[in-house]
Amino acid sequence: MSAARTIHLNAFDMTCVGHQSPGLWRHPDDQSSRYQDLEYWTGLAQLLERGCFDSLFIADVLGVYDVYQGSADAAVSDAAQLPVNDPMLAVSAMAAVTSHLGFGITVSSTYEQPYALARKFGTLDHLSKGRVGWNIVTSYLDSAARNLGLDRQVPHDERYQAAEEFLEVCYKLWESSWEDGAVVRDKASGIYADPGKVHPIGHKGRYFSVPGIFLCEPSPQRTPLLFQAGSSPSGLAFAAKHAECVFFSETRPDVLAPKVSRLRELAWRHGRDPHSIKMFPLMTVVTAPTDREAQAKLADYQRYASYDGALALYGGWSGLDLSGYDPDQPLRYVQTEAVRSAVEGFTTADPGREWTPREIARFVGIGGRGPVVAGGPGTVADEMERWIDEADVDGFNLAYAITPGTFADIVQYVVPVLQARGLLRTSYEGTTLRESFYGAGQARLRDDHPGAGYRRTHG
Amino acid sequence: MSAARTIHLNAFDMTCVGHQSPGLWRHPDDQSSRYQDLEYWTGLAQLLERGCFDSLFIADVLGVYDVYQGSADAAVSDAAQLPVNDPMLAVSAMAAVTSHLGFGITVSSTYEQPYALARKFGTLDHLSKGRVGWNIVTSYLDSAARNLGLDRQVPHDERYQAAEEFLEVCYKLWESSWEDGAVVRDKASGIYADPGKVHPIGHKGRYFSVPGIFLCEPSPQRTPLLFQAGSSPSGLAFAAKHAECVFFSETRPDVLAPKVSRLRELAWRHGRDPHSIKMFPLMTVVTAPTDREAQAKLADYQRYASYDGALALYGGWSGLDLSGYDPDQPLRYVQTEAVRSAVEGFTTADPGREWTPREIARFVGIGGRGPVVAGGPGTVADEMERWIDEADVDGFNLAYAITPGTFADIVQYVVPVLQARGLLRTSYEGTTLRESFYGAGQARLRDDHPGAGYRRTHG
Repeated sequence: MSAARTIHLNAFDMTCVGHQSPGLWRHPDDQSSRYQDLEYWTGLAQLLERGCFDSLFIADVLGVYDVYQGSADAAVSDAAQLPVNDPMLAVSAMAAVTSHLGFGITVSSTYEQPYALARKFGTLDHLSKGRVGWNIVTSYLDSAARNLGLDRQVPHDERYQAAEEFLEVCYKLWESSWEDGAVVRDKASGIYADPGKVHPIGHKGRYFSVPGIFLCEPSPQRTPLLFQAGSSPSGLAFAAKHAECVFFSETRPDVLAPKVSRLRELAWRHGRDPHSIKMFPLMTVVTAPTDREAQAKLADYQRYASYDGALALYGGWSGLDLSGYDPDQPLRYVQTEAVRSAVEGFTTADPGREWTPREIARFVGIGGRGPVVAGGPGTVADEMERWIDEADVDGFNLAYAITPGTFADIVQYVVPVLQARGLLRTSYEGTTLRESFYGAGQARLRDDHPGAGYRRTHG
Repeated sequence: MSAARTIHLNAFDMTCVGHQSPGLWRHPDDQSSRYQDLEYWTGLAQLLERGCFDSLFIADVLGVYDVYQGSADAAVSDAAQLPVNDPMLAVSAMAAVTSHLGFGITVSSTYEQPYALARKFGTLDHLSKGRVGWNIVTSYLDSAARNLGLDRQVPHDERYQAAEEFLEVCYKLWESSWEDGAVVRDKASGIYADPGKVHPIGHKGRYFSVPGIFLCEPSPQRTPLLFQAGSSPSGLAFAAKHAECVFFSETRPDVLAPKVSRLRELAWRHGRDPHSIKMFPLMTVVTAPTDREAQAKLADYQRYASYDGALALYGGWSGLDLSGYDPDQPLRYVQTEAVRSAVEGFTTADPGREWTPREIARFVGIGGRGPVVAGGPGTVADEMERWIDEADVDGFNLAYAITPGTFADIVQYVVPVLQARGLLRTSYEGTTLRESFYGAGQARLRDDHPGAGYRRTHG
């Protein structure tokens, strides 16, 4: 089955230090503390394009991890996703030194106005010549809400309702405000655009009022490629309708498989080709010429992982402060609903396992919530094929243990094997990000995507 | 007097077509319709750095010019600042191909949250290694307000009150949240930052609540260089307190002189060195080897100016729709207060002149609200010196008639003359934008700037 499809590779990074590997910035070879250095980003982009990656995916939070120990101290000390720069602003520099790599950018719809955000993505789609994607999140940190004008998070389900309308406004701006033939740009006739083909969207909804015309002329993709990562029921419903790529964090393919299958079914109910949603599990690959060297590399990395940094991240993800618990006592003995729920959410991979805080920290310490695959090129490719076969996924969202070392190792060792097996492209399909996923000629939304319904019929 | 000081040059552009020269995108040599092309921006930045410009200043509006004829049709047809991309997103690509040029970016405080915007400027200051400036505006287009969640503009004076608090929040984030010694980044000790030196700002005000710590570690300039352009009483009061560079649009130096003098006096009352505010009149220079060739070039440009496009811009600036008036009837005969006020606001340069709509359109058609200086290199330099002497200005905000042609002509013909006269640098003073204005070593706010008062005293 796996030989029948080619897979897609996203590199998973964040404009911060030690994204999914708290503490590993201390490793001599790690350069993640160069996150504020433009040359780090342009170098990474060129490396990924050499490796035929589809895109660099940039995560983001607009807050700090201050649940653990009731403060941000551990996050500050260990640089656990703090400091964190804006994810959108290095993209044009990376676009300038590449010609095919895409850029998936995380922006929360909770803290933006659709009229302004649609222009940002329109602008980046122009500047990158059609290589931008939007990872739609609704935010999970209370610390973000408190600093952005809200007393606390908007309730989870209402965030998704607002996001639904946010997308509706964006589709109207991107797909329907300017007709394809609107821009004439004809120096001879003196007409830049035909006012008869540029339309106010007239949106008046529960959350947003946007009467006007879109500020950008149509960009190569119009709507950026849409990524989504929510795994709650409202998150899945949202993804089934809107997402073109979905990210998962599961530690075993057999646990992931029913979720992928469920999402494809939901997409089908929305009238979409179930296989038009590309499914990406999170994975951290540690590789070297041989299995033994890869295992030794992993053991070396593990020496640098930070207990406090890992539990700071875990606190933000789960809402649970593990600082008050014995590091070596299994948490299933802790008799509170909050602990049970948070731990179970984390440990679906091994339902029977009795996790201690120290084991959770060790797990999170490299690769966050996803699996770590350590092995030689063939071993890694085999494991990827196993995920493809068992979980029906379309590619991998590859986090780093150290950066750019982890990505450089993948490009050097694993990519040639994947290409030799016919699993990975050896050249790019088209010029836009969407064409990397759907083939040359499909720069715009597929016709079965709900956003395509906002297009104007011509003539 | 003029020989005693060196001047500063800003290039004035916008991520749109025909910024201050509506219609001139139709000129065969104009490339402003490449505004969505990254190579236009990187080429322009390299050109300006060759010419020892201080910065590229990028204007913005988040709305459309829909006052003239009661619709946006003229703006759409003539591309009068529409389409308009986001001004912030090409900056990192330009920073990657230059090493000294600064980037002044227009962002309205009316439509942003300070916690998020402070991070954007912090990020760009990191990525550009200290070369970013913020042109603080409060927005003037009703069309922007309507699409960004407001029924209409926030009243003018209240916009400035909110902007005042917005700046206060930003200063706290930029200057006081992270102490200078907070970031250790020491792989040996394993400490990235010292939590004892990273402080929540605890801001609770009338417009904003921002309790937390800043998301960015300190960047080279911390606070970006602050630009401002308001000329109303509240705008001037705001500039006198906060601005490090101020833009003016006046057509004659003798009209500008008292405004500059008044602003320096207001700055002095705030305890600031009056000459630490750098004053920039808008100017459009059309130049060539000789005066005769420059005049011929201007005449050629004027053939491409657009009557409707110019009055579309004028409508947005003044709030006045001139489409109902006879193009050739002097407007002083129109007996409405709105017309008198709008026309007088525009024509302070010639108080006695009886402007017709056609004359206004011709005036706006090249260079917007500022003067056009057409002449050979010596003539242009003489005129610049006259402005310096008569109006006590510190440099020029140079708009284009065509781009990059106007800038290329300035770099080729005028810059060498200014350098020969000792008026313009031949190499840059430091590595940051603020050092270009205040000398090597002054990357941070001057001590007499009110933002410096938010710094923590150490020890």
